[in-house]
Amino acid sequence: MDYDRYDRIRAVQWQGDHLRLLDQRLLPREERWIDCRNAGEVTQAIRDLAVRGAPAIGIAAAWGVVLAAKQGASLEQALSQLRAARPTAVNLMWALDRMKARIATGADAMALEREAQAIQDEDLAANRHMGELGAGLIAPHSGVLTHCNTGSLATAGFGTALGVIRAGVSAGRIEQVYAGETRPWQQGARLTMWELVRDGIPAKLIADSAASHLMRSGAVQWVIVGADRIAANGDTANKIGTYQLAIAARHHGVKFMVVAPSSTVDMATPSGEDIEIELRDPTELLAVAGQRTVVEGAEAWNPVFDVTPAELIDAIVTERGVIERPTTLAMQALFGS
Amino acid sequence: MDYDRYDRIRAVQWQGDHLRLLDQRLLPREERWIDCRNAGEVTQAIRDLAVRGAPAIGIAAAWGVVLAAKQGASLEQALSQLRAARPTAVNLMWALDRMKARIATGADAMALEREAQAIQDEDLAANRHMGELGAGLIAPHSGVLTHCNTGSLATAGFGTALGVIRAGVSAGRIEQVYAGETRPWQQGARLTMWELVRDGIPAKLIADSAASHLMRSGAVQWVIVGADRIAANGDTANKIGTYQLAIAARHHGVKFMVVAPSSTVDMATPSGEDIEIELRDPTELLAVAGQRTVVEGAEAWNPVFDVTPAELIDAIVTERGVIERPTTLAMQALFGS
Repeated sequence: MDYDRYDRIRAVQWQGDHLRLLDQRLLPREERWIDCRNAGEVTQAIRDLAVRGAPAIGIAAAWGVVLAAKQGASLEQALSQLRAARPTAVNLMWALDRMKARIATGADAMALEREAQAIQDEDLAANRHMGELGAGLIAPHSGVLTHCNTGSLATAGFGTALGVIRAGVSAGRIEQVYAGETRPWQQGARLTMWELVRDGIPAKLIADSAASHLMRSGAVQWVIVGADRIAANGDTANKIGTYQLAIAARHHGVKFMVVAPSSTVDMATPSGEDIEIELRDPTELLAVAGQRTVVEGAEAWNPVFDVTPAELIDAIVTERGVIERPTTLAMQALFGS
Repeated sequence: MDYDRYDRIRAVQWQGDHLRLLDQRLLPREERWIDCRNAGEVTQAIRDLAVRGAPAIGIAAAWGVVLAAKQGASLEQALSQLRAARPTAVNLMWALDRMKARIATGADAMALEREAQAIQDEDLAANRHMGELGAGLIAPHSGVLTHCNTGSLATAGFGTALGVIRAGVSAGRIEQVYAGETRPWQQGARLTMWELVRDGIPAKLIADSAASHLMRSGAVQWVIVGADRIAANGDTANKIGTYQLAIAARHHGVKFMVVAPSSTVDMATPSGEDIEIELRDPTELLAVAGQRTVVEGAEAWNPVFDVTPAELIDAIVTERGVIERPTTLAMQALFGS
C-alpha cells in the first residue's frame, strides 16, 4: 500500500494549545483553516459543518474536551454542548463517552490530551486496516461508486469508504471511481472529487440521480459508502441518498459495501427504526451560496440522513473484521451485545 | 376542473411575426422573454435550453418553420437545423415531420402558420384531457412525487405530468406534492416549484436522493413523470433520475405513472435499447452559474436522460387513453404499428 501517495491529507490537527480544522464548507475554492481555542468553538465548528464526517466529528469533539480541561472550564458543560452538536453521528457520543470515562477516573488535562490523541491515532490505523479488508473483497478491473465524503477529510486520515477505494486503486483492483454529487451539501462534488484529483485517482462526478443509469451500463461492480450509525441488526444510517443507492444496487446485481470503524456501531440501537434522522434547514435546498434559487414561498423537506436496511447490504467492513450479509447474530459475534 | 386557477401560464407565444419564449434558464429569479425572429434563433433557443420540455420544443420548432416560410428562407435548411437541436425529444421530430408534410403539399406561409397553431392548440387540449384521465387513477388523500418540469413551461399549457397533478389537486384527490430538484439543471427546483407556488398547490422540494426515504415514510402513493420518448414496448426515455425513481417506487409499492401526448410515442423505436441518450457538457456538473464548484482537473459523466423499462411503469397516460402495465401489444392497439 502506497501511503505516501494516497494518505497525505490531515483535516483535524492538534496544535498543542488549540485545534486546527480545515474548513470543509469552503473547499475546493479555498483551503482556509479554523483555529478553535475552546470547547464552544469546537461545538460551533461541528454544528456549522466546518468539520464533518462521523469519525472526524468524534475526534474534534475529544479535542474540545481537552481544550475545556486545559482552561479549567466545566467539563460537564463541554461534554453536554459537544454531545448536542449533531444528533445522528454515533462516533460523537462514543468519543465523548470515552473522554468522560477518563474524566471519571480523575484524569488531568495531560491525560485527556493523550486520550484524544489515542482516539485520533486509532482512527487512522483502523482506516488503513479497513482499506486492506475492503479492497480484498473487490475483483480486479472493477468500477466503484461512492457517495458523500468518507475520505481523509471525514476522518483522522485515509478515510473509511474512500480508504477502501484508495487501497483498491493502489492494489490495482479498482480502475474507475464514480462519485455522486451528494445534494444538498455537495460533499461528493466538492470534497471527494478534491481528494481523488489530488491523489491522481481516475474519477468522474455524476448527478446523484444518474446512479441507476450508471449501474445499468455495467460500469460499476460495487457501491462503497461510509456510515454515521450502524444499528445492532446491521441497519445503517448514512448520508441521504445512501438508501436509494442500495435499492438501485440490489436491482442491478451491484454489490453494496459499508465501511466504518467499530465506534460507529451502536449495539444499544436494535434497528434502523430507532435511529433519529436529522432534518436540517429547508433553505439548504432553497438557496445556493446565500442566493435564493427557488421561488419565494416555496417549502422544502430536507432530511440529511436515511437508513439502509441490513438486507440490502452485502458487506460491513470494520477494523475488527468483515460481516457479509449482516444479521443481529453476526453483529453480536463481532461487537458483543 | 378550475382552469382559471390552474392554467394561466403560457411560455410559448406566437406574436404574428415573431415567437416569444419565456427564458427558462433565468426562472425563478427573472421573467425575461426572448423574441425569436427566424428559424436560427429558435434553433438556438432550443439548443441552449431557453425553451425546454419535449412538447414545448416541438411547438417552438413548428413556429421556427413558420418564421422561415414568412421570410422566404430555405425551409429544408430550417427543418434540418431545428431537427438537430436536441436528439432525444421525439416531439421535435414529430412536429417537424408534420410541418414537412404540409410543405410537401405546397402549403404557403399562412397555411404553415395554421398548422403550427393547430399543433399548439392540440397540445393544450391533450394536456387537459390527460389531466382528467390521470387524476382518475389517483385515490383521494394521495401524496405524489414528480421529477423535472412537465408543466405549462414544458408544453403549450397546463402540462403533462404536472397537468395530472393540477387536475388531481383540483379534484381533491392529491393533498401534497413533492418535487425533486432534478440536477443538474434544477428544473424541479427552479421551474416546477415556481409553477406550484403560483397555483397555490401544497408542495415541498426534496433532494433527488431523498426520494426513497420519502417513499419509505408512506407520504407518496404515486410518482408522476413526463416523457421525452416512449418506445413501441412502453420503455420510456425521460430526464435523468426517472429510472432511479421507478426502481425505488417498485421497491416500495408506490405506483409509477408516465404522462405524455401521443406525439411522444415512437412506434418506430422497438425498445429503450434503441434510444440515443444525450450526453451534455460535464461543466454542467462542475460549475454553478459560471463559478467552478468542483476542483480543477475533475471530470464528470453527464447523461441527461435515462430509460425506464416498461415493466417498472404502472400506467402510461396519453390523450388517446391509458395503458396500464404497458406491453408492445397494448401499445400497438392504441398507437397503431
